[in-house]
Amino acid sequence: MPQPVTDAQIFAGRTSMLFASKVCDYLGMEMGQSETIVFSEGALFVKVLEKVRDKDVYVIQTIGTKPNDEFMELLFYVDAFKRASASSVTAILPYFAYAKGDKKDEPRVSIRARVCADCLEAAGVDRIITMDLHSPQIQGFFKKPVDHLYAMDALCTEVRKHDVDNLVVVAPDTGFAKNARKYANKLGVGLAIGDKVRRSHNELAEVEGIIGDVAGLNALIVDDFTISCGTLASTARYLKKLNAERIFACVSHCVMSDRALDELTNSPIERLYITDTVENAAAFNHPKIKVVSMAPVFGEAIRIIHNRESLSQLFDGQP
Amino acid sequence: MPQPVTDAQIFAGRTSMLFASKVCDYLGMEMGQSETIVFSEGALFVKVLEKVRDKDVYVIQTIGTKPNDEFMELLFYVDAFKRASASSVTAILPYFAYAKGDKKDEPRVSIRARVCADCLEAAGVDRIITMDLHSPQIQGFFKKPVDHLYAMDALCTEVRKHDVDNLVVVAPDTGFAKNARKYANKLGVGLAIGDKVRRSHNELAEVEGIIGDVAGLNALIVDDFTISCGTLASTARYLKKLNAERIFACVSHCVMSDRALDELTNSPIERLYITDTVENAAAFNHPKIKVVSMAPVFGEAIRIIHNRESLSQLFDGQP
Amino acid sequence: MPQPVTDAQIFAGRTSMLFASKVCDYLGMEMGQSETIVFSEGALFVKVLEKVRDKDVYVIQTIGTKPNDEFMELLFYVDAFKRASASSVTAILPYFAYAKGDKKDEPRVSIRARVCADCLEAAGVDRIITMDLHSPQIQGFFKKPVDHLYAMDALCTEVRKHDVDNLVVVAPDTGFAKNARKYANKLGVGLAIGDKVRRSHNELAEVEGIIGDVAGLNALIVDDFTISCGTLASTARYLKKLNAERIFACVSHCVMSDRALDELTNSPIERLYITDTVENAAAFNHPKIKVVSMAPVFGEAIRIIHNRESLSQLFDGQP
Amino acid sequence: MPQPVTDAQIFAGRTSMLFASKVCDYLGMEMGQSETIVFSEGALFVKVLEKVRDKDVYVIQTIGTKPNDEFMELLFYVDAFKRASASSVTAILPYFAYAKGDKKDEPRVSIRARVCADCLEAAGVDRIITMDLHSPQIQGFFKKPVDHLYAMDALCTEVRKHDVDNLVVVAPDTGFAKNARKYANKLGVGLAIGDKVRRSHNELAEVEGIIGDVAGLNALIVDDFTISCGTLASTARYLKKLNAERIFACVSHCVMSDRALDELTNSPIERLYITDTVENAAAFNHPKIKVVSMAPVFGEAIRIIHNRESLSQLFDGQP
Amino acid sequence: MPQPVTDAQIFAGRTSMLFASKVCDYLGMEMGQSETIVFSEGALFVKVLEKVRDKDVYVIQTIGTKPNDEFMELLFYVDAFKRASASSVTAILPYFAYAKGDKKDEPRVSIRARVCADCLEAAGVDRIITMDLHSPQIQGFFKKPVDHLYAMDALCTEVRKHDVDNLVVVAPDTGFAKNARKYANKLGVGLAIGDKVRRSHNELAEVEGIIGDVAGLNALIVDDFTISCGTLASTARYLKKLNAERIFACVSHCVMSDRALDELTNSPIERLYITDTVENAAAFNHPKIKVVSMAPVFGEAIRIIHNRESLSQLFDGQP
Amino acid sequence: MPQPVTDAQIFAGRTSMLFASKVCDYLGMEMGQSETIVFSEGALFVKVLEKVRDKDVYVIQTIGTKPNDEFMELLFYVDAFKRASASSVTAILPYFAYAKGDKKDEPRVSIRARVCADCLEAAGVDRIITMDLHSPQIQGFFKKPVDHLYAMDALCTEVRKHDVDNLVVVAPDTGFAKNARKYANKLGVGLAIGDKVRRSHNELAEVEGIIGDVAGLNALIVDDFTISCGTLASTARYLKKLNAERIFACVSHCVMSDRALDELTNSPIERLYITDTVENAAAFNHPKIKVVSMAPVFGEAIRIIHNRESLSQLFDGQP
Repeated sequence: MPQPVTDAQIFAGRTSMLFASKVCDYLGMEMGQSETIVFSEGALFVKVLEKVRDKDVYVIQTIGTKPNDEFMELLFYVDAFKRASASSVTAILPYFAYAKGDKKDEPRVSIRARVCADCLEAAGVDRIITMDLHSPQIQGFFKKPVDHLYAMDALCTEVRKHDVDNLVVVAPDTGFAKNARKYANKLGVGLAIGDKVRRSHNELAEVEGIIGDVAGLNALIVDDFTISCGTLASTARYLKKLNAERIFACVSHCVMSDRALDELTNSPIERLYITDTVENAAAFNHPKIKVVSMAPVFGEAIRIIHNRESLSQLFDGQP
Repeated sequence: MPQPVTDAQIFAGRTSMLFASKVCDYLGMEMGQSETIVFSEGALFVKVLEKVRDKDVYVIQTIGTKPNDEFMELLFYVDAFKRASASSVTAILPYFAYAKGDKKDEPRVSIRARVCADCLEAAGVDRIITMDLHSPQIQGFFKKPVDHLYAMDALCTEVRKHDVDNLVVVAPDTGFAKNARKYANKLGVGLAIGDKVRRSHNELAEVEGIIGDVAGLNALIVDDFTISCGTLASTARYLKKLNAERIFACVSHCVMSDRALDELTNSPIERLYITDTVENAAAFNHPKIKVVSMAPVFGEAIRIIHNRESLSQLFDGQP
Repeated sequence: MPQPVTDAQIFAGRTSMLFASKVCDYLGMEMGQSETIVFSEGALFVKVLEKVRDKDVYVIQTIGTKPNDEFMELLFYVDAFKRASASSVTAILPYFAYAKGDKKDEPRVSIRARVCADCLEAAGVDRIITMDLHSPQIQGFFKKPVDHLYAMDALCTEVRKHDVDNLVVVAPDTGFAKNARKYANKLGVGLAIGDKVRRSHNELAEVEGIIGDVAGLNALIVDDFTISCGTLASTARYLKKLNAERIFACVSHCVMSDRALDELTNSPIERLYITDTVENAAAFNHPKIKVVSMAPVFGEAIRIIHNRESLSQLFDGQP
Repeated sequence: MPQPVTDAQIFAGRTSMLFASKVCDYLGMEMGQSETIVFSEGALFVKVLEKVRDKDVYVIQTIGTKPNDEFMELLFYVDAFKRASASSVTAILPYFAYAKGDKKDEPRVSIRARVCADCLEAAGVDRIITMDLHSPQIQGFFKKPVDHLYAMDALCTEVRKHDVDNLVVVAPDTGFAKNARKYANKLGVGLAIGDKVRRSHNELAEVEGIIGDVAGLNALIVDDFTISCGTLASTARYLKKLNAERIFACVSHCVMSDRALDELTNSPIERLYITDTVENAAAFNHPKIKVVSMAPVFGEAIRIIHNRESLSQLFDGQP
Repeated sequence: MPQPVTDAQIFAGRTSMLFASKVCDYLGMEMGQSETIVFSEGALFVKVLEKVRDKDVYVIQTIGTKPNDEFMELLFYVDAFKRASASSVTAILPYFAYAKGDKKDEPRVSIRARVCADCLEAAGVDRIITMDLHSPQIQGFFKKPVDHLYAMDALCTEVRKHDVDNLVVVAPDTGFAKNARKYANKLGVGLAIGDKVRRSHNELAEVEGIIGDVAGLNALIVDDFTISCGTLASTARYLKKLNAERIFACVSHCVMSDRALDELTNSPIERLYITDTVENAAAFNHPKIKVVSMAPVFGEAIRIIHNRESLSQLFDGQP
Repeated sequence: MPQPVTDAQIFAGRTSMLFASKVCDYLGMEMGQSETIVFSEGALFVKVLEKVRDKDVYVIQTIGTKPNDEFMELLFYVDAFKRASASSVTAILPYFAYAKGDKKDEPRVSIRARVCADCLEAAGVDRIITMDLHSPQIQGFFKKPVDHLYAMDALCTEVRKHDVDNLVVVAPDTGFAKNARKYANKLGVGLAIGDKVRRSHNELAEVEGIIGDVAGLNALIVDDFTISCGTLASTARYLKKLNAERIFACVSHCVMSDRALDELTNSPIERLYITDTVENAAAFNHPKIKVVSMAPVFGEAIRIIHNRESLSQLFDGQP
């Protein structure tokens, strides 16, 4: 049972209200009152409805399915809290969609994650808490401290409950190979890696090979996020071609549309493990999907930070 | 006839493509090639498709009907141009919706225009060009130079063409009284001011009085922008009650939805003068609406800046 | 009775010593000891004479009748407190003369209020408290929190004590119309607005009209500050021409010279309500002037801030 | 034949004198004169010996075998050029050793590459040119433009000259799998990935498996840098155990000590392809080592930048 | 004969108009037009009266006898030029009075020169040119380049014209010993140093000894500035007591009031060499004072900077 | 007996471990655990081994005999502490070798002390504590508070213990004359000043004269640091030529190599007083050297800062 936190206050943006209330429940706290008005042309107006002077404020906002609206709302809240003389403002981004824009791999593009980092710091944020960034280097885009949480521990615990033998972890491509290695270590099983995936900006992806052995094994495809379910489904189909047995998948952040959920339904994937970092009622109720809540992980991080303890205990299970 | 501009390149965000092409036409220039991809979950990706190294880049993007998407796209373009080693990046915001968030008139709110200014400067913008800001003080939110253009001259020229006698300019409220005074000066007519307008964040507004004489006169209501047409329509009705004759209106920025256009149709307003700073096909084709293009004003500003001349000549007609 | 404040210390620049001592009296505190030496050629040297390490320092300095000397002294104090390791430094500017430089309404001028804001922030200020800024947008010139206080409540309370019937509030020009509307609301009376005031930098001003009815009414001219008394006096004369009865006036900040006081003496203004944000012995003793002290308002703001309460209770009466 | 560059001047730190002279030769330029004095206790003093006012300065300094001395020398040069009123200062780091410190993967460590980026920007650098960063995200640690060059093209050209059949590219671990995929694509061959490599800070590493098929194939191990030759040698031995035929290796940055060169001599590696980004006479003369100069790549980048062309042509062969 | 400078424009603050016109004469340029209005309460308003877009602007303003007014005026000009899109703004401070506030030698004082440096940089200055700073370290208070000029060469040339034999240079105190050493080197004579000078903030100073021999010699007391003439006069009297023959003095910056000039009249000092960095008609006409104009030195510096040459030629005679 | 300090933690870089442990002993504290790994190519990696969240961290690192390695290590520690959410980080530099780079006295050199200051502030340092900076103005290179300690008091106490009559303090050159004056005051004796010292960057120095009387007196040469012992020895020899009796010397920071110690052995200097700000076992054991520990001075400063007292009591004996 966690201890109640004092002198701190948790607020949430519009799209993370439910997740934030679960975090508050975990900590036995009341959520802070605020309101976001959307004017008819789309401009946002935010207002904090209770006293925050000299409080440690935590504002939770996932940057997920409407990332621009969500990000601007977060910036305005950070500014409102700072101008209201909060002692510190911690922005909590359970999912940070623009983390994918983490490098300049083509000429004349933006490093969008750095732009977002600079905006948050310009607005006055004091600390960031987030989970399973697309690449860990993004912590270095911020000058302010970033506490980077991991879903792997909780997801693996859930995977193990279902007690599947002869498992092999499969990275859908070489880019996720290093993280997949950590999942395989955690589960004590082998690793295979998808190959020849061509990703273009229109998000098409086709697996053309698997490095490592999968025949006769049950496969667990792991990735950090899925939007269209395309990579997962095509990897699953390819695994089937290579005579893999049962196919499972596991992603931290699930931003799937209805069309993506249909793709899941029609794929050879038997079960998909996800977290609740992105609010997604349709996904949460999909029969193939198993949701593991990250509210206790974020709640525990807030408690530790507020009690001036060390987050490293949370990192024992880091991938 | 303006001279063609060299060594400069004009680009546009998605929602200002049409306006930017009119600016390019005015200047006899080709528009720079770029593309904005919207991923299925809503995240944006921008890419500049031609060489900009050591060029003076002008990127046009109105922050209007989808202000958050539009603003984030603009930030990413500014970053992309800077990282591509453009010599300078000028952001042109024909309309800047968040200019309305220019003060802290309630406890614990954000000064949203300052947040946007800080984000643009953090992204590396070198100069801003915009038009009819909600308050002129917003120039001071930027450390970088802001060239502030005015629509009044062009709008008054259009109003005069229609040759209406016995005109009185009407500010819908005391907040716009100072600017309305300038319209009245420009048109050489008198001024009246709407009173007891109560604006709350749900945008309801009710005129409860007019200071100054309007009976028997033709009224021209002036304002900087309209979204719902509510203020204009209620002022018009009140003017009718006070026995004003014909009613006209004039706003710089028109962000009207279909519902707002219906409100206009049903109002006593005979004709509404607007500009094209916000792309709005439905409004542009409304029978009561007369559109005055601002492309020549922005084009001329770019030409002057690029030729190292003084913008003050454009300011002769400033309100 | 306010509670005494602990762990905080109030200091004052040379020209706000008297005002600061009234604030300290209100709070039951001793004023902090410091000294400002003016060398014979005019350079300033400031020294804090007591320990401030890890204290919340409040330094009061009006930027009024010698604004450059006063502002530089304030900057040096902020730097001295920061280098002496004060926990936080709040600059209190009861009047901020350079707030008038809040926009670029002519080519090639400075936005002087932004320059001052940047200097204060470069010197390391943590918070600003001020009153009745020339425009509320100036809060946005600061990245640091600005607590903006209002004199209107206290001034209206004083006005009401004198129990004058048939009052009408008069804004001397359209620029102050919005604030005058708030005075009228507060006093429950009507509003009229001066017109055709031409202000040039040599401060001449001539009222050429009044929008709204004033005949037979007692007028209360309201404005944020007066230097020469010119606008007030010419408005008063014009009101007399329009058969207004008794004439009163009310300004927040009074920077009147002896010549300006003569202008007041000779004007039809019967009584002028002012505050003590600018120390001005000649004005305070003028028979037509009624001074309302703002020391309790500033003292209460300090108390609230220091006790981590919400300033919004002070804002109930905001204009 | 590249065109000579004008109005620019290339300088070098002590450890990149030779490399810089090759770059100057490529461009047909004289190297700029400067001197670095090392005082007897180790402090550095730098002095630029010729006029740089309003010139575009390029200062080449690898951060390699004495990274702290080299980095501080670079910072002092950047400052000296800025204070001498150079028009722009581009820091060229052929190798950037601290790029390895790119994330916070343990509690309470520094993100050293971000610290270095902040120091370079604090010193006033205007642009960075570097090669094969440990992770591409490091570009986002800089606010200033980073031009990221790649050695892969030139290295693969050299590898192909030696005309080895039945090649398979081998990544020594999952972390380099994504880049190894690009080498395999470039060479049109298959990919295998080393597994169970445990790296601790004492740099021990042991390959415990290979994912993918290597038996009977000639292997080309690829990595971004090598210091001790340990990973390369142990991977080579493991490949031999799996019945790979001939073993080659290829790294961009070679920081090998004499002990490391002995390790290479004693390993099954037949030939090691490296570049000259780190000056290393012992390695350059080792019989198993084949050096490919990067001077033309950096020279061409400078020429392109200075002629305001687009670097994207250099990126055609990017990994 | 210097060449005329093009594309640059020289402006001046109120108190350096005469000096700036001499600089313009030297360069054969017209001075830029601007105006500074002082409102009746003391606030300043600056306006640039001609086009500066993309020009290199030099604004000359001594910070001397009214240092706060002069410094604020300079800040406002810098801001006005930057907002008017000048290509660069160089602030020229022939004398910088606040250079004396260069260290924290008592608890809880301000380092006033750093405050001024930060304000100038916050206002957007691009470069500083100044002369004979109280300590050379002040260059390091600026991040922007500082060109530091010296009066010694020109002053020594003048001293030599008067052809006095048996000269000894005298530093009034140990703090100026190092610079006095340079004067003695330049003139090829010996050095003596005043001792036991006690300076407190009330500017009293009493020489209680001279280290080195002066009996029978003609003494030239050298210092960087004088305000009250007190140090010079008391040193002169003490030299007389030690049987020095004729007494001369030489200071770079002369901020003497009428009272200080009387002190000079009554002192044993036969002749005082000064420069015109501070406009001071009374001093310039004093029979004992010989003025050496620094306009050619500043003019030459501007010419060199603008022609992209090296200032080091000006530094040959640096102390 | 000092009180133990709570809630603070003292850490040390590699070269100040011994000094830091003496500071901890003085305060009765355990030293914080951390480790610095030097990779084989020279790159550093730092790790803090205990919880520092919301603690006041003091990290001690002299920048002395390997200044670049030591400075980079310090930067990485500051970053690691900030990213680990320390409440504040105070960098303690008992000796700061780059303080000698405090001005731009030649064209096109770096102001190295400002570069270091900017790097420390970019890394996030909150306060600096250091001792006997080469010039006191360096405090102004930092925006953050600098507490500047002095060794003079403790050194003079030690000198007095040895009870030498007829002492004269000798500054080796005019640059140290002002500080030597303070030593002479403290000891109540006279002052002489070395002359015609020519220093070039190759550190040669030759005394060619002494201003003031030394014949028949016992001389104490004072300086802030010595590296080669060259200046001290040549001054001593010259003093002997002028018939000074016994010769002593006293420097705050001793960075002497073995060769420098030989120079001392062979010089007429009888005893050299130094401090332990630079760890130097060979010097500490030299028969002519007397070491005075500064650990109590730094320890007392930490205690005072942490107890929110005033450091001015430590400054009573400031030179």
